Amino acid sequence: MTDFFKDIPALRYEGADSANDFAFRHYNPDEVVMGKRLEDHLRFAVAYWHSFAWPGTDPFGGQTFDRPWFGDAIDLAKLKADVAFEMFEILNAPYFCFHDADIRPEGADFAENTRNLEIIVDYLGEKMQVSRTKLLWGTANLFSHRRYMAGAATNPDPDVFAFGAATVKTCMDATLKLGGENYVLWGGREGYETLINTDLGREADQMARFLSMVIDYKHKIGFKGAILIEPKPQEPSKHQYDYDVATVYGFLRRYGLENEVKVNIEQGHAILAGHSFEHEIATAASLGIFGSIDMNRNDYQSGWDTDQFPNNVPEVALAYYEILKAGGFTTGGTNFDAKIRRQSIEPADLILAHAGAMDICARGLKAAAAMLEDGTLEAKRRERYAGWDAPAAKAMLTDATLESITERVLSEGINPTPRSGRQEALENLINRFV
Amino acid sequence: MTDFFKDIPALRYEGADSANDFAFRHYNPDEVVMGKRLEDHLRFAVAYWHSFAWPGTDPFGGQTFDRPWFGDAIDLAKLKADVAFEMFEILNAPYFCFHDADIRPEGADFAENTRNLEIIVDYLGEKMQVSRTKLLWGTANLFSHRRYMAGAATNPDPDVFAFGAATVKTCMDATLKLGGENYVLWGGREGYETLINTDLGREADQMARFLSMVIDYKHKIGFKGAILIEPKPQEPSKHQYDYDVATVYGFLRRYGLENEVKVNIEQGHAILAGHSFEHEIATAASLGIFGSIDMNRNDYQSGWDTDQFPNNVPEVALAYYEILKAGGFTTGGTNFDAKIRRQSIEPADLILAHAGAMDICARGLKAAAAMLEDGTLEAKRRERYAGWDAPAAKAMLTDATLESITERVLSEGINPTPRSGRQEALENLINRFV
Amino acid sequence: MTDFFKDIPALRYEGADSANDFAFRHYNPDEVVMGKRLEDHLRFAVAYWHSFAWPGTDPFGGQTFDRPWFGDAIDLAKLKADVAFEMFEILNAPYFCFHDADIRPEGADFAENTRNLEIIVDYLGEKMQVSRTKLLWGTANLFSHRRYMAGAATNPDPDVFAFGAATVKTCMDATLKLGGENYVLWGGREGYETLINTDLGREADQMARFLSMVIDYKHKIGFKGAILIEPKPQEPSKHQYDYDVATVYGFLRRYGLENEVKVNIEQGHAILAGHSFEHEIATAASLGIFGSIDMNRNDYQSGWDTDQFPNNVPEVALAYYEILKAGGFTTGGTNFDAKIRRQSIEPADLILAHAGAMDICARGLKAAAAMLEDGTLEAKRRERYAGWDAPAAKAMLTDATLESITERVLSEGINPTPRSGRQEALENLINRFV
Amino acid sequence: MTDFFKDIPALRYEGADSANDFAFRHYNPDEVVMGKRLEDHLRFAVAYWHSFAWPGTDPFGGQTFDRPWFGDAIDLAKLKADVAFEMFEILNAPYFCFHDADIRPEGADFAENTRNLEIIVDYLGEKMQVSRTKLLWGTANLFSHRRYMAGAATNPDPDVFAFGAATVKTCMDATLKLGGENYVLWGGREGYETLINTDLGREADQMARFLSMVIDYKHKIGFKGAILIEPKPQEPSKHQYDYDVATVYGFLRRYGLENEVKVNIEQGHAILAGHSFEHEIATAASLGIFGSIDMNRNDYQSGWDTDQFPNNVPEVALAYYEILKAGGFTTGGTNFDAKIRRQSIEPADLILAHAGAMDICARGLKAAAAMLEDGTLEAKRRERYAGWDAPAAKAMLTDATLESITERVLSEGINPTPRSGRQEALENLINRFV
Ligand SMILES: [Co+2]
Ligand SMILES: [Co+2]
Ligand SMILES: [Co+2]
Ligand SMILES: [Co+2]
Ligand SMILES: [Co+2]
Ligand SMILES: [Co+2]
Ligand SMILES: [Co+2]
Ligand SMILES: [Co+2]
Repeated sequence: MTDFFKDIPALRYEGADSANDFAFRHYNPDEVVMGKRLEDHLRFAVAYWHSFAWPGTDPFGGQTFDRPWFGDAIDLAKLKADVAFEMFEILNAPYFCFHDADIRPEGADFAENTRNLEIIVDYLGEKMQVSRTKLLWGTANLFSHRRYMAGAATNPDPDVFAFGAATVKTCMDATLKLGGENYVLWGGREGYETLINTDLGREADQMARFLSMVIDYKHKIGFKGAILIEPKPQEPSKHQYDYDVATVYGFLRRYGLENEVKVNIEQGHAILAGHSFEHEIATAASLGIFGSIDMNRNDYQSGWDTDQFPNNVPEVALAYYEILKAGGFTTGGTNFDAKIRRQSIEPADLILAHAGAMDICARGLKAAAAMLEDGTLEAKRRERYAGWDAPAAKAMLTDATLESITERVLSEGINPTPRSGRQEALENLINRFV
Repeated sequence: MTDFFKDIPALRYEGADSANDFAFRHYNPDEVVMGKRLEDHLRFAVAYWHSFAWPGTDPFGGQTFDRPWFGDAIDLAKLKADVAFEMFEILNAPYFCFHDADIRPEGADFAENTRNLEIIVDYLGEKMQVSRTKLLWGTANLFSHRRYMAGAATNPDPDVFAFGAATVKTCMDATLKLGGENYVLWGGREGYETLINTDLGREADQMARFLSMVIDYKHKIGFKGAILIEPKPQEPSKHQYDYDVATVYGFLRRYGLENEVKVNIEQGHAILAGHSFEHEIATAASLGIFGSIDMNRNDYQSGWDTDQFPNNVPEVALAYYEILKAGGFTTGGTNFDAKIRRQSIEPADLILAHAGAMDICARGLKAAAAMLEDGTLEAKRRERYAGWDAPAAKAMLTDATLESITERVLSEGINPTPRSGRQEALENLINRFV
Repeated sequence: MTDFFKDIPALRYEGADSANDFAFRHYNPDEVVMGKRLEDHLRFAVAYWHSFAWPGTDPFGGQTFDRPWFGDAIDLAKLKADVAFEMFEILNAPYFCFHDADIRPEGADFAENTRNLEIIVDYLGEKMQVSRTKLLWGTANLFSHRRYMAGAATNPDPDVFAFGAATVKTCMDATLKLGGENYVLWGGREGYETLINTDLGREADQMARFLSMVIDYKHKIGFKGAILIEPKPQEPSKHQYDYDVATVYGFLRRYGLENEVKVNIEQGHAILAGHSFEHEIATAASLGIFGSIDMNRNDYQSGWDTDQFPNNVPEVALAYYEILKAGGFTTGGTNFDAKIRRQSIEPADLILAHAGAMDICARGLKAAAAMLEDGTLEAKRRERYAGWDAPAAKAMLTDATLESITERVLSEGINPTPRSGRQEALENLINRFV
Repeated sequence: MTDFFKDIPALRYEGADSANDFAFRHYNPDEVVMGKRLEDHLRFAVAYWHSFAWPGTDPFGGQTFDRPWFGDAIDLAKLKADVAFEMFEILNAPYFCFHDADIRPEGADFAENTRNLEIIVDYLGEKMQVSRTKLLWGTANLFSHRRYMAGAATNPDPDVFAFGAATVKTCMDATLKLGGENYVLWGGREGYETLINTDLGREADQMARFLSMVIDYKHKIGFKGAILIEPKPQEPSKHQYDYDVATVYGFLRRYGLENEVKVNIEQGHAILAGHSFEHEIATAASLGIFGSIDMNRNDYQSGWDTDQFPNNVPEVALAYYEILKAGGFTTGGTNFDAKIRRQSIEPADLILAHAGAMDICARGLKAAAAMLEDGTLEAKRRERYAGWDAPAAKAMLTDATLESITERVLSEGINPTPRSGRQEALENLINRFV
């Protein structure tokens, strides 16, 4: 037992009227919603990197957090793991997620990185024996080290491609070993700083090839989880190839990988790409590639990825509505890829940020479930398209031609009357639930 | 001869030092660049809608232009055509583009629309007999009339789908008849105002079906031009399905249409989608779907489509650089989907706006050609990827696996040294040409 | 009695569980909150222009609404007024707002405009005799007519300045006559399309002079309401001089008008200027110029003014929190400068949009009041600055110098320890109330 | 002589056709433009921080630059200074700028910081004895150290205010000692992360008080340079109080400081605030507070401060046009607050980035001067407002009232005819020069 969270009790569900800061007001893991426990719906995961590895730096300022485990040494990495699992327990978190670089000290070369990773993976494995917290996904950090400054899979230097590929192998091995339920790729440097030194076609081929090897290796080692790509349009790159869900889909189709890969959608990244979060989820669902979410918001007035904990129930409800409509999570879950603010320097801030977010998500999901069970919204939506059930309408989707339709427009004098989209009425309806 | 442009002479190329406002300073159609006449490179087109149909309205204000042809009558439509062709002659414009709604009076129903269109198409055909101006592309306006307020192909009402399909047929017929070299679809209402009343999956299927019929009809009637989709992320819709080039590509792949359709890329729409113009062009080229451009800029501080004439040579040069690298236009061209500002109410403004834009484009293309002929930039780009020519590197793109690569990283102690991306040096290089 | 809203009953408060679409769930005008009736807190106003004058056009599409009063004639203007007051009654709206151009037919010149306005003002006056709906504010539309395309007060043509000034006089007369509680100026064309034809200094002087005359006239006629400027950064102009609250404040100070003018803050305009709504309200309050609000949101993914009805309680709550902290409205109120979507073509849509918004605002205000009465948030805020109560700290704000402070830093070895900003904990706190 | 730039020669002006990368093509310091040497117009300054202190980190990646002077020690700081002055000589840079934190090692407390600063200031002073490079401005870094995470002047903790004030004193002393021509304040942390823990009014008072002490101290020590505030809207803060030029002006007026302080305007910050660079310059000039510029661009598709070297002549020309119109720089100059990209890891990249930027600025300024000397643009601008020279128009700006104007509108039947703004024609005109 470290003393990092020493005065902080494990959080329990106490109901909406609790006066206790260190309690859940809305997240009761055992509450059954639509036939499933809330915990099994939400599948919360803590992100190791922001919570335990990020020092509070930003582009204009240095470290603000004072953590006893900062530094590059195995013992410090173990201390970090100890504190992490203490937090998981305090939060009763069912899952966590990590990059290799979050959990192990940085080595001088690939071999040392691998050794370090293996030591820590073993250590985590031991901790997981006595913890209820599981691994939602693992991933490789192929963007922070200077070797990746021009990309990993898409680097002009094949040695970087090789280094990255080898690193992913070790991370997939680690994920498998720890029982991870997914493996994620986020290509923060897979893009460009300037088009003028970049060969788009070549880099796309490299990226597809890299991904194919990941898929092959997954099957080879019998990893049953999903391979997930996390879209983001830019930052750190000026342009990132995995721009948004639709772009990733096009990439997967181009290389025939659309049945092997799904997406991990982050609210903040959706915003940066000009979309609402629910849009990205609904798009992925309609394309058959919905996988998991990073439930962290961006500030709407900031043009960079602020990675804040969610705090707006009506927004979160719309996201879970799309997820529930799509059948809910299978291997995916709700990861908080979220940073406490760099001024939130106390251990308690770390706990309260997660607790608040978990409550927000619970409220959102319960509202979404209520809307779905009520059924009115879906009924209204179906009703809007009901005209397509008519035989002549259906025929247009199968064997009609521009000519046959033109004939029908003329012969029947088709001259459509607009019908209200009823947006405000539907918004009112939703506001009964959130 | 109308008297609309009565004091305005036909514009001639007079060289950079001309003091004449009504002259080209840089656009000499007969100048040969990279073995081709400038006119044949640039393939300028005037957009009928902004120049002759738009009354100067904006969301906060009414008509500012006072045009003798405004109003819904055949005679006025003919007067409009007369003035249009007078402008084409003044500008020595090789092409124009139109929507049905720009050239014909609005009818009460489909039959009347069709009759009106046919009359005006005949009239345009006669004018084209004695003009050198050809049709770059035709298109159907499926967004302005209230019947399309919830979409055309993606409308919840199948009657609107039918009306739109029949309308496209008439526009394809008109385009074929007038010798058009492309047919364009811009889906300004193919998207949604709110996700909560929308079925994404169904609407995508409708849109694909609609497009398939367009392709079938093209082949049926022997239209040899390209079918082009013009991406735009939003406005008027909150979300538009043809968001950007990558999204359109994904859509085409999904429905197996990627060999039948190309894109018409607009600078302003690229900006709205978070991309540079050259990015969209390079992306389309790398995906094999580059078709044509709308060379009109957006103001960088305005979050809507300002559709301004281009005025920045270095920016335009980068766009033409990507086009020339991709082999130049085939059926496509440089359309000015550009509005004079609503305060530019004099006939001369219309001429000067186009003349200035044509000069800017000529300067940009000539700079791009010089860069390409110089070859340094491309040599530097190739050099950056030269490591991939080594056998071990090539092998990674064909039969290596994560395991075989890992072995090689370990055995060879691969530990890549970063190399400069040389962005500023390359920017300096480009600035020698623009 | 017109038959426009013929099947729609007057809305009553029925409580959160009502199943009736045409009811208030949260807005009970007589509910007492912090010692005041909700109606007197919120002071709701319907905007005449969007609800009754806007035809549903957007930059890419024409009229979608089919209103029997559309057209330029006195009788139609009276019919419009009849329907407007019927809606006010259905909604039990305590206030409305108008521009001259909303309520009267457009005339051929100033004299005719004035005559038309006077006729309709008389008509409205009669209706107000038998209605409980009052006038929150009047204003002049100095942006829609083509004469204003280059500005009103800031026009390069002094005749436009004169026409605008005379028009404002008539609108102030009308506002006084109808018992209006404020007079608003929104300078949609007071800005520029391009800096290259603009003289910023001259236009600022013109604008200040215009405003001074408005203030003088207010005093002359004994108008007791507030003069309000509504900031907006751009659209329709590329740049609008009344950019945001801070900019307006600087302008007022520059010309010594800061005690005579307040601001009317719109959520959508705050967003366009890069601010949160609550930021603009808090800024205005801290500068002593807070007046009134336009409670209509912008879509966060659209770069133009979407003017939607509010639908997010947590956001609205933060706005009312700042308002209540500042003492609540005096002459100001909650105006809905909001458009139903152009697809919302049924009369019921108009009613439901307002009803939903009123409920959202009521929920927001009640949550804000509860937070304020609870007092924890304000206590935490004060506590954060408590160090400034110490004498040495206070002295720094009065008579210390850089030198005296430096001496103290050295002699006392001042080396401050950072303290947590507790942002997430405070966000959790707020989420107990919304 | 260090060997950092060992193979790089001093750059000379060689004319536009030079094939030498390490030469100026357009910047000839001795070229006389509008009666002044180019060097004296442009007054270029190198920014110490980005060029010598920034390690190439970004929010997602660590150090990429490998500089022998990195580390916290006096000797390393001296080595850094040696290399800096070697670069100044290579570039023939007339000026440089620094923060205290750039040039000295970080100490454990204020006393040590001060001692370190004094040592390095002495060292710089010696170097400046034998260099032609002068100090354009000095400044204090009150944002990077964790003590400033919640602001310096606006910190809730008065000890941080004190520490910051004492630090500014030492930086003003250093600036005076080194003959600096201006003193700059950039308030990267003077703002807030969240409004909910912030007292806007109190923080504004603190900031004004801090600034007043700076002004008093300036006069006390006989510093003759200008005090400059550098506006920026956000980043690192969610909201920064010195949002833009107009906001700073309002702040200065509020506290009566408008005659004592000017602004240092950065292109990238203008963009982030929703303005063009030339807008901010013209605004400052019209308000009488124009001081200096940071000539570094933001990428238009990135929502954060990319601080890139300028590379677009037409844009730069518009900025210098406003500067020349305002009389040119007095104490101010052209500082490159610009980062080479983090992939530009070679010493040559640092030189080439500056050289290219200096050429771009020289081209821009020469184009601007030519436009101004040509006089057509200014003549057109004046002509547009010529109507205001008439007596009746002038009278409206002095003693008219709404009533007297209304009478005149009626009696003279004033009904203004719109006149073209001629935007495109003027854009064409400008394009003759750039
Ligand atoms: Co993120
Ligand atoms: Co993420
Ligand atoms: Co456009
Ligand atoms: Co277009
Ligand atoms: Co608005
Ligand atoms: Co408003
Ligand atoms: Co900057
Ligand atoms: Co700067």
